[in-house]
Amino acid sequence: MTHGTITDESGRDLGPGLGEVATHTTVLFSAQDPLVLDNGARLGPVQVAYETYGTLNAAGDNAVVLCHALTGDAHAAGHHGDPERRGWWDVLVGPGRAVDTDRSFVVCANLLGGCRGTTGPSDVDPATGEAYGLDFPAFTVADLVRVQRALVRRLGVRRVAAAIGGSLGGMQVLEWTLQAPGEVDRAVVLCASARLSAQNIALSTAAREGILRDPDFQGGRYPGTGRIPRAGLSAARMLGHVTYVSEEALERKFDRRRRPVAGTTSDPSAGGPPAPRDGHDWFAPVFEVEHYLHHQAVSFLERFDALSYLYLTRVMDAFAPFEAPDADERLAGVRDAGTRFLVESFTSDWRFGPAHSDHIAAGLSAAGIPVERRDTVSPWGHDSFLLPLGEHLDLVAGFLAR
Amino acid sequence: MTHGTITDESGRDLGPGLGEVATHTTVLFSAQDPLVLDNGARLGPVQVAYETYGTLNAAGDNAVVLCHALTGDAHAAGHHGDPERRGWWDVLVGPGRAVDTDRSFVVCANLLGGCRGTTGPSDVDPATGEAYGLDFPAFTVADLVRVQRALVRRLGVRRVAAAIGGSLGGMQVLEWTLQAPGEVDRAVVLCASARLSAQNIALSTAAREGILRDPDFQGGRYPGTGRIPRAGLSAARMLGHVTYVSEEALERKFDRRRRPVAGTTSDPSAGGPPAPRDGHDWFAPVFEVEHYLHHQAVSFLERFDALSYLYLTRVMDAFAPFEAPDADERLAGVRDAGTRFLVESFTSDWRFGPAHSDHIAAGLSAAGIPVERRDTVSPWGHDSFLLPLGEHLDLVAGFLAR
Repeated sequence: MTHGTITDESGRDLGPGLGEVATHTTVLFSAQDPLVLDNGARLGPVQVAYETYGTLNAAGDNAVVLCHALTGDAHAAGHHGDPERRGWWDVLVGPGRAVDTDRSFVVCANLLGGCRGTTGPSDVDPATGEAYGLDFPAFTVADLVRVQRALVRRLGVRRVAAAIGGSLGGMQVLEWTLQAPGEVDRAVVLCASARLSAQNIALSTAAREGILRDPDFQGGRYPGTGRIPRAGLSAARMLGHVTYVSEEALERKFDRRRRPVAGTTSDPSAGGPPAPRDGHDWFAPVFEVEHYLHHQAVSFLERFDALSYLYLTRVMDAFAPFEAPDADERLAGVRDAGTRFLVESFTSDWRFGPAHSDHIAAGLSAAGIPVERRDTVSPWGHDSFLLPLGEHLDLVAGFLAR
Repeated sequence: MTHGTITDESGRDLGPGLGEVATHTTVLFSAQDPLVLDNGARLGPVQVAYETYGTLNAAGDNAVVLCHALTGDAHAAGHHGDPERRGWWDVLVGPGRAVDTDRSFVVCANLLGGCRGTTGPSDVDPATGEAYGLDFPAFTVADLVRVQRALVRRLGVRRVAAAIGGSLGGMQVLEWTLQAPGEVDRAVVLCASARLSAQNIALSTAAREGILRDPDFQGGRYPGTGRIPRAGLSAARMLGHVTYVSEEALERKFDRRRRPVAGTTSDPSAGGPPAPRDGHDWFAPVFEVEHYLHHQAVSFLERFDALSYLYLTRVMDAFAPFEAPDADERLAGVRDAGTRFLVESFTSDWRFGPAHSDHIAAGLSAAGIPVERRDTVSPWGHDSFLLPLGEHLDLVAGFLAR
């Protein structure tokens, strides 16, 4: 096994990361014993892709579950053969890292409705032999948690020492504590929301619009046709990505710099490249920020699915656990179970910024639940939870260690 | 003529508006005597659609030119037969209003590259008998101003008492003063930018991406095919619209309210409508903010063109007059001509907010040009410049009257 070394933004060595890891799959629900969803629909089989790091102890109580965000997958840490290409939360997870794989049994699963090994709307429905498409049932954050819980039971976990997630991942952590009070000891809810704002919903609606209307979407029947809604999905990714990073982050990284045009000697930063003659060349990437977004979109088209994008964004729109009729009762259960919460936001996050975390903390506190609430200074926006920011990593490590 | 009455947000009567008005067209450049653009391309004929209100005085020096923003048109004030449906800047323009048509000769033209009567990329190129498409030349804010100037000359204007514009309109006003020092006495630059940020560019790139990749875009050859890039253009409009209004404005207007579902008696604000079974119904508008955005998109598809959207957004990306090699020389010309500036922004504008106006004012001030800089408190975001906000209307009126 090859080990990588990563430093945080202050240059501190985070220690050797995990070596090579593998994604596994398991079938948690069958056609005969299906998953029953919030809306009453029955879904089976449900296959789940997951990874584990570290060893489950004899008591089965040292599990840490990582819940991924909208576009994540099961490959949170370590690598799949190339030590330079590491899992999405590698900075947080590994021997001696904040989530210490020498002490904890770490589990990360691809979400229900996803497209990275867990059953989702672009998969084939065994009952019909065709992809589900829009026939795939609607589901909720609570349903995502039902699948997470079924997986950890299957793996022999008796008690979840901690559940950790950012954004949609944080929503699952919060919902888990409400759905099964006492099952999770520590809940780490990072830059999440328990109530999307009108602007949040509006931006997701704009992103979905391009997919739904894309002629290549074909009413959701595109899987297997050789055509996918590239226009809608790439525009959605670009828009989404802009909301994941702060204005300051884009300014620092790109400002208005232009990429030098091959074969010219002109200084592209002053005056820019020669003006194009017409529209044929005019809309290709010129500014570095455009090259960056195009790269994001192209790689997203390779690894993500439009139907999963629709379903998993819609799940977020609906999540409002503190407004549910049984909210008080559920929160009382969490209080009585003694669950401890860390609710962290990042100062420059304009997707689910500090006000969203304040709302979560207030909802918990009002029910008498102890909450550690932190607003970490970061210029990098919503994606800060994925970055090697020393203050953030120490905060999570300290909360888990206490 | 029927007159309408409008009040500002404090209830103050803005007086009777203009009555019925008409849009005219004129051909300003021909194939033989073409418009020569910044990039050297020649374009002719160029037809321009415009409206005028009030009367040009004998000296030809009481003209006020309104420069519209990205999706505007020539119909700024009055109405076209239905007094309830009035021009986009009617609150600002009329007898006794801030731009007083009893005293001024007001001109408003649809922009070059537009789709509301002025020559643009979806028009037929007389030389080929087919729509220009992406063969339409690339152009700049300076080119937009060249057409504005040719129009006012054609109308007999000898001196522009004031040029006024918001957003892309404000960019034209600024560029006009730099291009022809002394031609404009007073420049009103509202929520504009002289240097789009990386985030500004990124959001426009995301919007264009969906249009450019839309299969119905057909490489820009869609005019006349019966198919237009509806997916891309409607998503672009939704995204754009979210950037024109503040988060607070969306919160006040819509919050998370859901529209009652016909035929049900459930209270849609509590708990929401029954969960949909599958994806077929799940992505239709449910939240009021979604209904609003869908209405915006549908009406936009009726009145706006995708190629114009591409061209006019790209024009903004490139505009950086203070970074041009001849900026100092041009600014000195403005200073020597004695042009007076009002540079106004709105507190909640997150598209071209106060920092953009600060940058404009600083660039002018550094050259010794007097600038009145105001940051008007408004919760309504970028679109504030179009609204009947008393403080804003009084500011413009006072600046023009002095």
